[in-house]
Amino acid sequence: MTGRLIVIGGDAAGMSAASQARRRRDHDDLEIIAFERGHFTSYSACGIPYWISGLVDYPELITRDPETHRKEHQIDVRLRHEVTGIDLDRREVVARDLESGREVRETYDDLVYAAGAVPTVPPWARTDAGGVFGVQTLDDGKALRHWLDRDPKPTRAVVVGGGYIGVEMAEAMIERGLEVTLAERGEQPMSTVDPDMGRLVRDALVGMGIDVRTRVEIIGLTTAGGRVTGVRTNGGTIPADVVVLGTGVRPNVQLAKEAGLPIGPTGAIRTDLRMRVIGIPGVWAAGDCVETVHKTTNQPVYVPLGTHANKQGRVAGINIGGGYATFLGVIGTAVTRVCDLEVARTGLLEPEARVAGFEFITVTVESTNTAGYFPDAARMTIKLIAEKGTGRLLGAQIVGRSQSAKRIDTLAVALWKNMTVDEMSMLDLGYAPPYSPVWDPVLVAARKAVDELHAL
Amino acid sequence: MTGRLIVIGGDAAGMSAASQARRRRDHDDLEIIAFERGHFTSYSACGIPYWISGLVDYPELITRDPETHRKEHQIDVRLRHEVTGIDLDRREVVARDLESGREVRETYDDLVYAAGAVPTVPPWARTDAGGVFGVQTLDDGKALRHWLDRDPKPTRAVVVGGGYIGVEMAEAMIERGLEVTLAERGEQPMSTVDPDMGRLVRDALVGMGIDVRTRVEIIGLTTAGGRVTGVRTNGGTIPADVVVLGTGVRPNVQLAKEAGLPIGPTGAIRTDLRMRVIGIPGVWAAGDCVETVHKTTNQPVYVPLGTHANKQGRVAGINIGGGYATFLGVIGTAVTRVCDLEVARTGLLEPEARVAGFEFITVTVESTNTAGYFPDAARMTIKLIAEKGTGRLLGAQIVGRSQSAKRIDTLAVALWKNMTVDEMSMLDLGYAPPYSPVWDPVLVAARKAVDELHAL
Repeated sequence: MTGRLIVIGGDAAGMSAASQARRRRDHDDLEIIAFERGHFTSYSACGIPYWISGLVDYPELITRDPETHRKEHQIDVRLRHEVTGIDLDRREVVARDLESGREVRETYDDLVYAAGAVPTVPPWARTDAGGVFGVQTLDDGKALRHWLDRDPKPTRAVVVGGGYIGVEMAEAMIERGLEVTLAERGEQPMSTVDPDMGRLVRDALVGMGIDVRTRVEIIGLTTAGGRVTGVRTNGGTIPADVVVLGTGVRPNVQLAKEAGLPIGPTGAIRTDLRMRVIGIPGVWAAGDCVETVHKTTNQPVYVPLGTHANKQGRVAGINIGGGYATFLGVIGTAVTRVCDLEVARTGLLEPEARVAGFEFITVTVESTNTAGYFPDAARMTIKLIAEKGTGRLLGAQIVGRSQSAKRIDTLAVALWKNMTVDEMSMLDLGYAPPYSPVWDPVLVAARKAVDELHAL
Repeated sequence: MTGRLIVIGGDAAGMSAASQARRRRDHDDLEIIAFERGHFTSYSACGIPYWISGLVDYPELITRDPETHRKEHQIDVRLRHEVTGIDLDRREVVARDLESGREVRETYDDLVYAAGAVPTVPPWARTDAGGVFGVQTLDDGKALRHWLDRDPKPTRAVVVGGGYIGVEMAEAMIERGLEVTLAERGEQPMSTVDPDMGRLVRDALVGMGIDVRTRVEIIGLTTAGGRVTGVRTNGGTIPADVVVLGTGVRPNVQLAKEAGLPIGPTGAIRTDLRMRVIGIPGVWAAGDCVETVHKTTNQPVYVPLGTHANKQGRVAGINIGGGYATFLGVIGTAVTRVCDLEVARTGLLEPEARVAGFEFITVTVESTNTAGYFPDAARMTIKLIAEKGTGRLLGAQIVGRSQSAKRIDTLAVALWKNMTVDEMSMLDLGYAPPYSPVWDPVLVAARKAVDELHAL
């Protein structure tokens, strides 16, 4: 008898699951239907800022279009279909065709819930006026591009929120020639690193010509003729022809809640390591709608990133296909580029380490990305957080120029394996003058942490 | 009572030991004498090719000159002093002042043997004719620069040996405008990676205009008027006004042998993890004259690299100073740049894994250094070697363009911690479009290795 897999959500997590299941079970054994609300499948949402800036065109962001899924993998992709209900008892999904308005019902043996995340839209941003955009989906990006290209062309942008998306979108807007204000509620943009590191990011943004405003509370919008004209803040009104929301996302779990899927303390869906929804037979979840475990704290966390979504979808698909795979958790690694500044982190920030109950020391070192005597040697700042007593690495942050950010991976593996800074200081890392001083910056930082811990 | 430390060798290992000992014990407690045969202390020998090419000038390669050691650390550095004898019973060192010819004798409480390595000079290269150079010390580099700058200026260079030094020197000579032939005995240059990866290096060298000749046996030199004029090989004579030896180095242990220090199977000095010479109280050794342990095979290896020399010297110095430190061994990590090609390795090569008795699989993947859709995405090749059965990573090699080589550190930490490719495929590495595809190249390689192992 043929089984049937239904996938809710046609992006990274959902389509990875579908593809992996198909790889192990052919169409005679497993029928696969994927419902996707938008117009696209399997694309790089992280690439949207580079499309907005003009570096790439949007079709390049699509890894696999619906036709490819249909023809090469015999996956019945149904675009513009919004799933409106899940009946766990009947193992049935109800979806609405957004074009025709028709309702369809399909039963499943296995269900993958991969509905992703939705942008957090603050109350002040809920407006009928044009010019306010999230950048969560390719459809969002398309709407924004259309607005930017259409007369009267916007010349003044306000980006709200200084996280990864906000910072990347601010840069994209500057590259398109707009005047850009970045409005951040906190002390520094890039609150994904500690404020001492975030200051370096702020300097880079200002250096690009972005008007960076911090400790900004937004009160509302001003509009005229159905278009946004400004952002009202506690520091006055900032003129704007376009407003981009970088105010974060939340898991898209409305439907999951209604169906009775278990929601964890982070507000996202709870799964086991194989991506099975806890306690619900035949139902799997993956991607920006699930919570996972932070390996450093062993606590549940919500980290909506494409890299995790891809892995989780793959794990679900392998398991549905009859294989065995697990998603082992995350350690909070992230990198971004701001102009020519590279910013990276892994593990816990200082406040996160404090909340988790760790006692720790921090050290910050300045080094270079090549031997110091190389003419183009560029500065790199590394900060480490290590537990008192054990010396275990708890977190690391890097801000630097070229060839800096991906060094976080070295620290990420060390953190993943619970290494102590003592052992790290003796690691056999690659050395040659074009790549580092004879003491690699990671080793210098570990050495300093060792000294700090011994001095206690 | 004041103790006395004598250091033999004034480069990385010796002076790191001296500096660390001084940091913990001041001059009233510990007198320090360092004998150095040459004219320099504490310099980056790895930087010599970049001095030859003209990228940097040699004073920039010196981290700390003798005056600084004397004034800031009260270390009695004696340049141009060659140690000619060690009397372990009397705890006495005999040295000859190469300028005056005078002999001096000094007793010690602690002795650090850090005499480094000497270039392997093949019999055919032992000549009175000018124009044949090793590039092991700053003095060697100075002699070579002098030869290159003096009329009649050499225009044709032959570099013998295609290891790191050979390849880097060939590039340096090309950058100075010479015609360059690289003569390598083996199948490919860069035998520090497997031949399939070495082929990529060969292509890069040829692309730079270097005449790469492999399977070359050298028979002798031709000379005229006291100068070298060519290199005689099994494939004919290659004209040359200058010959650079990249034929490797061996530990400088003549003196150690005469004194009775223990020599291991690699031909280098045996120490424990604290860098104490085995069985000889008060005597320490560090740097290019000692052997260490390969953490993957647990076998002794000889890996003369500045990065190890610095660490070992530091460890010896901390211990002499009354602290506690250990050098944990190596895993064979190395990186280099050939033109714009980046080459890196860690762990074992295929033949090394075979000799060590491992059964293994290998996988090679092509990926890019950024998201594939970025306009400047550049190709990167990663090869992994993993043990059958356990899935443990045994070795990794990377060849690629920009932002490739230092990714070896990620693999080096994984290898150091004995990770399996299964666990590696789930690592939380940094992802953003400017730095990698959503599946990082390291993850793609690990995934492929997992598939390969499961298919067995």
